[in-house]
Amino acid sequence: MTQLQNDLLLRAARREATERTPVWMMRQAGRYLPEYRAVRAKSDFLTLCKTPELAAEVTIQPVDIVGVDAAIIFSDILVVPEAMGMELLVEEGKGGPRFPDPIRTADAIAKLAVDGAADRLQYVYDALALTKTQLEGRVPLIGFAGAPWTLASYAIEGGGSKNFETIKTMMYNEPELLHTLLGKLAGVVGEYLVRQTQSGADIVQIFDTWAGAMTKDGFLEFSLPYIMQIVDYVKEHSTVPVIVFAKGANSTFPELADCGADVLGLDWTVDIGEVRAAVGNHVALQGNLDPVALYSSPESIRAEVRRILEWYGNHPGHIFNLGHGILPTVPVEHAKAMIDAVKEISMEIRAEENE
Amino acid sequence: MTQLQNDLLLRAARREATERTPVWMMRQAGRYLPEYRAVRAKSDFLTLCKTPELAAEVTIQPVDIVGVDAAIIFSDILVVPEAMGMELLVEEGKGGPRFPDPIRTADAIAKLAVDGAADRLQYVYDALALTKTQLEGRVPLIGFAGAPWTLASYAIEGGGSKNFETIKTMMYNEPELLHTLLGKLAGVVGEYLVRQTQSGADIVQIFDTWAGAMTKDGFLEFSLPYIMQIVDYVKEHSTVPVIVFAKGANSTFPELADCGADVLGLDWTVDIGEVRAAVGNHVALQGNLDPVALYSSPESIRAEVRRILEWYGNHPGHIFNLGHGILPTVPVEHAKAMIDAVKEISMEIRAEENE
Repeated sequence: MTQLQNDLLLRAARREATERTPVWMMRQAGRYLPEYRAVRAKSDFLTLCKTPELAAEVTIQPVDIVGVDAAIIFSDILVVPEAMGMELLVEEGKGGPRFPDPIRTADAIAKLAVDGAADRLQYVYDALALTKTQLEGRVPLIGFAGAPWTLASYAIEGGGSKNFETIKTMMYNEPELLHTLLGKLAGVVGEYLVRQTQSGADIVQIFDTWAGAMTKDGFLEFSLPYIMQIVDYVKEHSTVPVIVFAKGANSTFPELADCGADVLGLDWTVDIGEVRAAVGNHVALQGNLDPVALYSSPESIRAEVRRILEWYGNHPGHIFNLGHGILPTVPVEHAKAMIDAVKEISMEIRAEENE
Repeated sequence: MTQLQNDLLLRAARREATERTPVWMMRQAGRYLPEYRAVRAKSDFLTLCKTPELAAEVTIQPVDIVGVDAAIIFSDILVVPEAMGMELLVEEGKGGPRFPDPIRTADAIAKLAVDGAADRLQYVYDALALTKTQLEGRVPLIGFAGAPWTLASYAIEGGGSKNFETIKTMMYNEPELLHTLLGKLAGVVGEYLVRQTQSGADIVQIFDTWAGAMTKDGFLEFSLPYIMQIVDYVKEHSTVPVIVFAKGANSTFPELADCGADVLGLDWTVDIGEVRAAVGNHVALQGNLDPVALYSSPESIRAEVRRILEWYGNHPGHIFNLGHGILPTVPVEHAKAMIDAVKEISMEIRAEENE
């Protein structure tokens, strides 16, 4: 194993003291980078995910170009249902990925493949291994997967959804059916994440992108138990820290803080200092700049970064990030301004407090 | 003045004891009703808003058909910017209302008409007066307006928005410009709501539909002060209760509870019992069934209604509602099942507690 030259992210995730706050961005390997667009011009999205050389190339780009403190493997959460037998289509300009044959019956759920599903994601493990080698220990490598609720939303709705009518109707009318699907997804996701840690991931993140669509009660019954099952499984079979980002599940922080994860991701609508006060010191927090703030001037970006760093305060356990993925039309120099500001201002804050 | 035969809503808004929990639905005069669709088949949306006889007809429909405890005047929040001089287009199947000439400069803001704007909304006051007469005191009549932040979002973005890039960039880079626009809107909205109370509105609601797009900090600087200005103005010039529904501003309840409003609206993502415990007894709460729950079976709907009523508990000050507008494809009998369940179960709960 190559020794990591920059392990700030891992130490912050474990709530150890760091000389400055580590920073990365969700969707940092993405369209805002001309270098990414150049690779994508020659390859469609899923081919990019499934070709380890290309995935490794775009995964490492933001480390070189904007100076983030971690690389996150280029992939998509929907490769898991695909590996379980669902046809996945990602077509340009057609409103996001979709499953043309969504799952809505007991029969369709029964047919989903659990055995062997994690094996069919070998291309992700290969991409991780190759990226890990090419990173040469510069920064940690993040693996990830979607949470069962979010994966089930896509699988049942057939794609992105405004109101989540189909999955919620199943939730109310046929809760056991939905639980069966969620249980299958949780089993595969757990194994998938462990295999990622065995292939080079130093830390993993579980994305529950649609957590905020539910009632608190619904989240506690249909999402959190499956997240906990996955966290338990990863903890049992690896030593890596786990980040849980349940976007919008903001009335559930007390419960989330006890889910076994090392780090909770926050969207931009909450005050990170208030959340820290509410959940105490037993989890680290990741976030939470409004992605749209990156359209403002570098001076405004710097002021917003300072505000969040000061709200969090000089405590261990903060990983700076956006509150959602970086938007495709953000100027690269604005992303860079944010990252530089996090590095500089967090060092200043540490120095002031130590005077 | 006709004496109200059913004033449950007004008493609940003032946190007085009621024999059962009052219930209404946002967008209750809307597409889920065949009777509404019949009227709309003969008239476009804005004509309907601007023709008092038609507006009164659809406003009263849900009182007759589903038995809600209040009528809310049929209108749209965007008539205010229109009255200030902006061209408003509402075209079928074109993704919601839009302003083809959005406001993005100091010059455009300077040209917005404040003087006389409330006068140009006479058709709303006429619709209220006519509805009030036709209601014959059966239930209270609700007036409403959009909050300045939400109106400014539409005016600046030119329509609905996913990320609110233009208004937020103005917020970060030219905050004073945005404050100027918000101040103008607040002045007109205040006068507009007072005129509504003088024309028959027994209570008014301020809709801040896009409150949840902002950081907490942004909400406290760019939305809440203008809401408070409006609430103050309404309180100074009328005696009606005020409901504030800042959708998604869920980390701001303590501040919202002190904004001067009588009632806070809640979306479905929060536990109404926890919010009540957090904000104490000095505001009433309105909400908060997930609108999508109305797609489930009448039995499931009844169970969800019971859960919310029990969470709130046998305290005064609950107005039952959905956490957002009723969706256009909900079966009418499901809406009716919800309303009947609220009436029956809340009486049961009162009776049990008094045994």
